[in-house]
Amino acid sequence: VKVAVIGAGSTYTPELVDGFARRQDVLPVDELVLHDIDPFRLERVGQLSERILIRSGFAGRLTRTLSLDEAVTGADAVLIQLRVGGQQARIVDETLPHGFGCLGQETTGPGGFAKALRTVPVVLSIADRVRELAGPDAWIVDFTNPVGIVTRSLLDAGHRAIGLCNVAIGFQRRFAEQFSVAPSDVSLDHVGLNHLTWIRGVTIGGADVLPELLSRFGEEIAERVGSPLGLMSTLGAIPSYYLRYYYARDEVLAEQLSGPSRAEEVLEIETALLEMYADPTLDVKPALLEQRGGAYYSEAAAQLVCSLVADTQDVQVVNCRNDGTIAGLSDDAVVEVPAVIGRGGARPVASAPLGAHERGLVQAVTAYEELAIEAARTGDMRAARLALLSHPLVGRWPLADDLLRALLDANRAHLSKFEQTGAW
Amino acid sequence: VKVAVIGAGSTYTPELVDGFARRQDVLPVDELVLHDIDPFRLERVGQLSERILIRSGFAGRLTRTLSLDEAVTGADAVLIQLRVGGQQARIVDETLPHGFGCLGQETTGPGGFAKALRTVPVVLSIADRVRELAGPDAWIVDFTNPVGIVTRSLLDAGHRAIGLCNVAIGFQRRFAEQFSVAPSDVSLDHVGLNHLTWIRGVTIGGADVLPELLSRFGEEIAERVGSPLGLMSTLGAIPSYYLRYYYARDEVLAEQLSGPSRAEEVLEIETALLEMYADPTLDVKPALLEQRGGAYYSEAAAQLVCSLVADTQDVQVVNCRNDGTIAGLSDDAVVEVPAVIGRGGARPVASAPLGAHERGLVQAVTAYEELAIEAARTGDMRAARLALLSHPLVGRWPLADDLLRALLDANRAHLSKFEQTGAW
Amino acid sequence: VKVAVIGAGSTYTPELVDGFARRQDVLPVDELVLHDIDPFRLERVGQLSERILIRSGFAGRLTRTLSLDEAVTGADAVLIQLRVGGQQARIVDETLPHGFGCLGQETTGPGGFAKALRTVPVVLSIADRVRELAGPDAWIVDFTNPVGIVTRSLLDAGHRAIGLCNVAIGFQRRFAEQFSVAPSDVSLDHVGLNHLTWIRGVTIGGADVLPELLSRFGEEIAERVGSPLGLMSTLGAIPSYYLRYYYARDEVLAEQLSGPSRAEEVLEIETALLEMYADPTLDVKPALLEQRGGAYYSEAAAQLVCSLVADTQDVQVVNCRNDGTIAGLSDDAVVEVPAVIGRGGARPVASAPLGAHERGLVQAVTAYEELAIEAARTGDMRAARLALLSHPLVGRWPLADDLLRALLDANRAHLSKFEQTGAW
Amino acid sequence: VKVAVIGAGSTYTPELVDGFARRQDVLPVDELVLHDIDPFRLERVGQLSERILIRSGFAGRLTRTLSLDEAVTGADAVLIQLRVGGQQARIVDETLPHGFGCLGQETTGPGGFAKALRTVPVVLSIADRVRELAGPDAWIVDFTNPVGIVTRSLLDAGHRAIGLCNVAIGFQRRFAEQFSVAPSDVSLDHVGLNHLTWIRGVTIGGADVLPELLSRFGEEIAERVGSPLGLMSTLGAIPSYYLRYYYARDEVLAEQLSGPSRAEEVLEIETALLEMYADPTLDVKPALLEQRGGAYYSEAAAQLVCSLVADTQDVQVVNCRNDGTIAGLSDDAVVEVPAVIGRGGARPVASAPLGAHERGLVQAVTAYEELAIEAARTGDMRAARLALLSHPLVGRWPLADDLLRALLDANRAHLSKFEQTGAW
Repeated sequence: VKVAVIGAGSTYTPELVDGFARRQDVLPVDELVLHDIDPFRLERVGQLSERILIRSGFAGRLTRTLSLDEAVTGADAVLIQLRVGGQQARIVDETLPHGFGCLGQETTGPGGFAKALRTVPVVLSIADRVRELAGPDAWIVDFTNPVGIVTRSLLDAGHRAIGLCNVAIGFQRRFAEQFSVAPSDVSLDHVGLNHLTWIRGVTIGGADVLPELLSRFGEEIAERVGSPLGLMSTLGAIPSYYLRYYYARDEVLAEQLSGPSRAEEVLEIETALLEMYADPTLDVKPALLEQRGGAYYSEAAAQLVCSLVADTQDVQVVNCRNDGTIAGLSDDAVVEVPAVIGRGGARPVASAPLGAHERGLVQAVTAYEELAIEAARTGDMRAARLALLSHPLVGRWPLADDLLRALLDANRAHLSKFEQTGAW
Repeated sequence: VKVAVIGAGSTYTPELVDGFARRQDVLPVDELVLHDIDPFRLERVGQLSERILIRSGFAGRLTRTLSLDEAVTGADAVLIQLRVGGQQARIVDETLPHGFGCLGQETTGPGGFAKALRTVPVVLSIADRVRELAGPDAWIVDFTNPVGIVTRSLLDAGHRAIGLCNVAIGFQRRFAEQFSVAPSDVSLDHVGLNHLTWIRGVTIGGADVLPELLSRFGEEIAERVGSPLGLMSTLGAIPSYYLRYYYARDEVLAEQLSGPSRAEEVLEIETALLEMYADPTLDVKPALLEQRGGAYYSEAAAQLVCSLVADTQDVQVVNCRNDGTIAGLSDDAVVEVPAVIGRGGARPVASAPLGAHERGLVQAVTAYEELAIEAARTGDMRAARLALLSHPLVGRWPLADDLLRALLDANRAHLSKFEQTGAW
Repeated sequence: VKVAVIGAGSTYTPELVDGFARRQDVLPVDELVLHDIDPFRLERVGQLSERILIRSGFAGRLTRTLSLDEAVTGADAVLIQLRVGGQQARIVDETLPHGFGCLGQETTGPGGFAKALRTVPVVLSIADRVRELAGPDAWIVDFTNPVGIVTRSLLDAGHRAIGLCNVAIGFQRRFAEQFSVAPSDVSLDHVGLNHLTWIRGVTIGGADVLPELLSRFGEEIAERVGSPLGLMSTLGAIPSYYLRYYYARDEVLAEQLSGPSRAEEVLEIETALLEMYADPTLDVKPALLEQRGGAYYSEAAAQLVCSLVADTQDVQVVNCRNDGTIAGLSDDAVVEVPAVIGRGGARPVASAPLGAHERGLVQAVTAYEELAIEAARTGDMRAARLALLSHPLVGRWPLADDLLRALLDANRAHLSKFEQTGAW
Repeated sequence: VKVAVIGAGSTYTPELVDGFARRQDVLPVDELVLHDIDPFRLERVGQLSERILIRSGFAGRLTRTLSLDEAVTGADAVLIQLRVGGQQARIVDETLPHGFGCLGQETTGPGGFAKALRTVPVVLSIADRVRELAGPDAWIVDFTNPVGIVTRSLLDAGHRAIGLCNVAIGFQRRFAEQFSVAPSDVSLDHVGLNHLTWIRGVTIGGADVLPELLSRFGEEIAERVGSPLGLMSTLGAIPSYYLRYYYARDEVLAEQLSGPSRAEEVLEIETALLEMYADPTLDVKPALLEQRGGAYYSEAAAQLVCSLVADTQDVQVVNCRNDGTIAGLSDDAVVEVPAVIGRGGARPVASAPLGAHERGLVQAVTAYEELAIEAARTGDMRAARLALLSHPLVGRWPLADDLLRALLDANRAHLSKFEQTGAW
């Protein structure tokens, strides 16, 4: 079994490799390949990863390479966790929209759109190499944001892909702690699109403990997802943290305008982390990594790859084709729902229909996503304008047009598709 | 043939009765009954209507009554054009939202929601009388806004209803003039929800003249619908004037804050009109009526009633059940599309699928409408909160909750359903 | 305006050209081209057609050609009414299945399947020439059976096609006579697939006269469609004559085994007709033509072409994409329903959902049709076997396989697609 | 935990109780209640059950009762395995159709229809008692045939029900033996309606071993399901044994006419079994039970109840609402597919779309089932006629009508609903 990690220079990677080490009995990985285009980060991150694996008694091999082809050749699973344009591009995603009265966020709104434009063509071209060098049976696991958009563009192009997010697993682990049960005893009725989900039920031992959760830990949950209890009781659900960018868009914008961008914070944390990683005595992940975000990503990713390769047929929350799961969306839409995972991929599990509110928002954002994918794939200016006009956080004209021009200008170095369609 | 007009004290009514007079050969109306709860308006409007009918040589009878039961007994068609709370309530719809940073409009946004809450129970109870006194075959034609919501609540309650709007017929007449053809030679690819429509094609003699229209009369059209040419060319369609409340919401709010409300203007025009109507020598509609809005409503209404009663099987744009016409909406949704009209009602005609942008917006607003209907019908506070939270022009929390409280307070006199659910 | 008729050697053609002559005021056809590959029939039929047109004062030109390219070049509409393999092949369709205990019919069952295999590739290749020589705006009107299958294969290949059948127009004319009204005053709630339809309602002046029809003319209708009154009252509808091949399959088979095949009868009638057509004094269609079948085809075809070219936007029953009209069928299915006809084609009109019985049969036959189209288009043996296995009149194994072999052998001369896939 | 078995006089029951005993660690059943209306059978079967449970060291209590109310009061799960009219009625189901040229079978065709008419009202009235006496959270597991029809009628009436069949588990066990793996290592792509299913894939360790199965064990499988290899390779799937009643209807009829009915065989086996059960030294199930049919039913039932009550969230093949799982069927249809089972019930897992052949047959039979349910629930004669007319094994008129009369007459003692609608 060979697993390749693309964008392995991420500071998350040490935790990820640890996840594979801890699952050796279920999935004996023979080779774990780390790939990045940044030699410095690859070395730093790779060296710490190596020390961690030694400490864990990992039986397989860890290799590092700057060559994508080398990395993916013969892989059973390829994890994609790259960031086109790095934290610098993210700063633009998070701040440029402010000038237009919009909040800045790297996975939704104008910033998320810019990230989609930058990312989709790069991931698609990596996927083409995977198909060629690892064969049609290799799985692509996408953790690169915006996960829903990237996953759908992979599936539309015929790739064997599943999208991964750490939101659901994070809730599952926290609820398990709160009820002192094993994480696998907690099942979530988590439904929607990536970063646009609601937890409508939390089942432990067959009983729905959501009401108890809200009454006992309501304040903590409200804090965590940034939504007040009144909203949660109206929804009858816990909205994802990312829904705050919709429900509390004005407050978020005000906060953003008065503080440093998240990208700047992350940049600082990452610099510190990479510094620490250089310490040859360090062989565990440093505490600071928890401030990096992406908690439990390593858990989620290692668990998903295990199930895909070892065919465990267990239920995990992933991003996959809708196929009738959410009524009111086309079968081709990519949704984030519980699915049975095995070697054949993810088969979503039926759930209760969405309420009208959730359905309407999910439909509106799916429309945006379709147009964003078309724009990213082709560089088509009309699709790009319509994408922004369709996004609930934009939805205005000439705002959509003005924003588009500014985003294209600021991201010019990463948007070769638009070069071809004469955007400039 | 008996036709009843409920809310006949409207200043439109003289034009409406004229429409029936002019169609006597197709639909020989025996009795035209005008009903209103306001004796003063009923008398003024009724007297002018009578003079107009005399002048037109109308062969039927015109009656006036303050009794709803008298009006609808034995009617073949009942036109509903009332306004719960009158222009005073409209002023609230148009101004209260300003305090919350939202635009004020009587058919969409918070104002439209308030109007829906006031109107649905009243129209439903009128419809119940119609069913009882005119039998299950009588048609209810709803021109009362919000037409989509009111029509769907009628259909959901099992009534035989069709919703009517003057937007499509207005465009058809104007385009016919511009191309010097008869209105019936112009067919529109007009699609969406009431007040949320796009004209995607204009066919004259089998050719789509939309491109020519936009190139020859683009400025005039842009002016008329309040959308710039750049937006129209991006959409590849002419958006309804009411889409301006979405696409240009910020500009609209700014305009509203700096000028008198439309309700105030209308109030003034109506006062002047009712004054004129008192003139016993007046037997044509006064020119001022054109500033009242609702142009061609009389045309549309008379034509629709003709087709329903005389079974003409022609194509008109109306509000009716979706029944598969717009993919991505449930069959039960009420849409505004071309339909074949006959005694059996409106059968919508298939059309090309909506583009992703239009589909997403239509789906989001349909979700709002479903929740608004539930709230209006039952007084359920949770549905009311979710309705506002789902509306693209609100969509925020605690804004939705705050707005709801203010709207309920301001409309308390007209919201008995909420009295029962303890909103206060 | 140029109209081409492919397969014009049919004995119907004189009636068809007469239809165009009678509609000169609505659709002034400049050129009517008759094409056939059989010079003898083309001459005989063409000469009578010419005499009829002279008598009618037809202002356009009538031409005859053996060249398909000449016929279709620059045409506005192309009518396809050919018969691959002629009446000889039809005899096989109607008799070969008897050896397997199945009824023989040229549009349904094993015989209809064989006809589909022979016809689809020929019509598709004609359509390709039309696209090339008449441009993408030319309409293809298919009257060649099996109309549903041929039309869908044309639409799947991207052609601008509409399928035509004379069943609905025949009922409309007869009912109009029975009620002494104009045909256009009768509208049918006719729904299903080609040759698998039910008339669920007959509206005259807005009232459904179906119950009256059944009580006054029940015996005549039962006779006409070959279904007893008890069945019609259970269905609440008049089934198409072709449904007899399902509902009364055993009786039909018994009748077929005891009499001459319909193909043999037609062959005899056609020989007599062609003899008559040679008479230079004949300038009206002979009475015998009525025994040929296909009554009102000329009416239906001329009316449809008029509406397509002159953009009349009237309602006619045609075969077109489902597009949500019949729930439970995919949008791509081809259905036979009322549609608004104009230059843009046929837009089906919404109607009440099918009852469970009708829906189940329509779904089963649609499944067969999809597989038959795939088999005809590609020569795929597995699709061919599954098509027969899916047909309600076959549905058994090894029967499906045995029948397939026999049908392929008997039609070998006309099945070049299967030559390529190694069926022999 | 209390589990009630309704119709416990079945000779299966000893095996069933053994299944619960063997699962004590997962599901500690406190009380197992056996109910039947036949005191003799209840005693015989109950006594053997008791001896088996003693031998197994079952910690719970086994009780027997002739009172339904006593049996279901406070139950967590109620298994329904009754047979209205007993084997006598089954003999009629299996032989009466012969007189009409149709095969006789107790779950499909005319016989299955008669069984549905007898069974649905009885099971619905039991379910009403369960709701009242065990509360709305109790699960009803239906093993009474026709399982699909009975389960849907339960769900339509708002009950918490799941339908169970032993076909899938039987295949899973056999394949596990053939590949020497544990049954839980075998997952089936089993899809369709109850007794109308196809196994499209058999996954072991992530690989589809269906091709290998067919090549190594093809003869055995062909024998088992009664379908030749040629048919299986055309289908690309293993059809359920019950599909033989469709694909090989003529052969089945011939066999039936030349041998004793299955009901007669079963009657004989059951008599012998009940004789054996009287032996006070017997405390294991006798070998003869295997000839009774229903192999692995006890496994399937005990496993399903465990998962429902102990919330195990594992995947089992059951009968539940479609909810988008099979495209082309309504969400309300009841399908037989893999589902995740937990306390909240069965959530079907998405799978690949059906091929056209399978889809068409499933749609046709679903139409029949809807009509059969309506007829059984209401005694409506028109629905009953249409049900038979819709069944692919009948589909003819007057056959449907004649069969209906004969079935009603023969089952008169068990069809009180039809008494009310004046069938006689």
